Amino acid sequence: MSADSKKELYIVGLGPGARQKMTQEAIDVVEACEVIAGYKVYIDLLKPYYPDKEYLVNGMRQEVERCRLALETAAGGKKTALVCSGDAGVYGMAGITLELATEFPEVDVHVIPGVTAALSGAALLGAPLGHDFTVISLSDLLTPWELIERRLAAAAEGDFAICLYNPSSHKRHDYLQKACQILLQKKSGDTICGITRNIGRDGEEKRILTLDELLETQVDMFTTVFIGNSQTRKVGDAMVTPRGYRRDNA
Amino acid sequence: MSADSKKELYIVGLGPGARQKMTQEAIDVVEACEVIAGYKVYIDLLKPYYPDKEYLVNGMRQEVERCRLALETAAGGKKTALVCSGDAGVYGMAGITLELATEFPEVDVHVIPGVTAALSGAALLGAPLGHDFTVISLSDLLTPWELIERRLAAAAEGDFAICLYNPSSHKRHDYLQKACQILLQKKSGDTICGITRNIGRDGEEKRILTLDELLETQVDMFTTVFIGNSQTRKVGDAMVTPRGYRRDNA
Repeated sequence: MSADSKKELYIVGLGPGARQKMTQEAIDVVEACEVIAGYKVYIDLLKPYYPDKEYLVNGMRQEVERCRLALETAAGGKKTALVCSGDAGVYGMAGITLELATEFPEVDVHVIPGVTAALSGAALLGAPLGHDFTVISLSDLLTPWELIERRLAAAAEGDFAICLYNPSSHKRHDYLQKACQILLQKKSGDTICGITRNIGRDGEEKRILTLDELLETQVDMFTTVFIGNSQTRKVGDAMVTPRGYRRDNA
Repeated sequence: MSADSKKELYIVGLGPGARQKMTQEAIDVVEACEVIAGYKVYIDLLKPYYPDKEYLVNGMRQEVERCRLALETAAGGKKTALVCSGDAGVYGMAGITLELATEFPEVDVHVIPGVTAALSGAALLGAPLGHDFTVISLSDLLTPWELIERRLAAAAEGDFAICLYNPSSHKRHDYLQKACQILLQKKSGDTICGITRNIGRDGEEKRILTLDELLETQVDMFTTVFIGNSQTRKVGDAMVTPRGYRRDNA
């Protein structure tokens, strides 16, 4: 970490929730910062460990405002951490903040990576992302649904293992079903899939099922979904995508 | 962690190299294990911190043997950690070990995720993976080159941000060039790309360039390559893929 005279903002990925899942670097950065900014749920996870920090807390839809506030705070001379769940960059706030940061040339912005749900959910299931994979969000809040469909079709065409973020919400309860229908045009109904829920938190759950079964399954917004490639197998109670396509790679 | 009577093997992702990049969970697991197994380079990173562990070290091409040895050691009653760089599952040893573990039903196998190069390299560059992305390895050691080509074409077709692992080796010095040629059939030569090298280690480097420039660039096996989607921008000295396709998402 650099001298106190510098104005610094750290965008920190916390991982899947529990402090134990943070990297040592993320822990060091949070400890070194005077101000912690973030969405209420993540702040509530940190506060018990760091009761003496200054906290900037706001709601879910106020992300651009939160980034700006964090930049202003850093520009004011207080070393600031803007925290988000999972990784700082994967559907995270690193991008928006770097764009806004052009208005604050005096602030050095550092991105501190974290374990995104694709990795933490995969570890819970076994090794579903052991070979080439795609990560696709089913949220059409900022992305046209047509593009999401095109990406699902491309992922199936490439026989990628697939990890789906935001598979459902109150308004989009049938999106996972729609996604499965697109994938089933190219993939077998027997394809091994996995569901993880509340990764790294109370009520952590996992389930392995086929793509045909996934089509009939209702999930919520705390769920991350994994869809195997043509080689993915159920091994004991684990979901495993082998690292290769040759027989000697068992 | 569970009672000592249980036979346990942990497959641990160390992240991009430095101990600071490990998760707290990975640090706790390594500290709690009696035996650490792994490839020489990663063992050398851990040894200074844990001089009193029993180490099982072997070479790069002996991975199946290493997994079996780790399982045998755990089955013998010694709590064992099998460590790998990055994440334990992404082209890592979790899959092979889970497959071999069916021969050792008395051993509980746990996968501990870590920060894979797609995330650590992305953080170094800014936020290149801020929207849907694919991870593709250019190594054809275990995968037919035709399938790699098909995946590159599908990734371009879906306008994914792309992260390339193993972009080069002594025998495959022109693979990145071949990959760029496939991508250029669907993507603009002006597409913003990024290169990271020796992430989290001495000699860490990054560079932002266009896809046309990447085509002419020689990289080595310590490099991770990022190729933007159609919305990816250079913002200051950062590579940023916005989280959405709508104008109000800045």
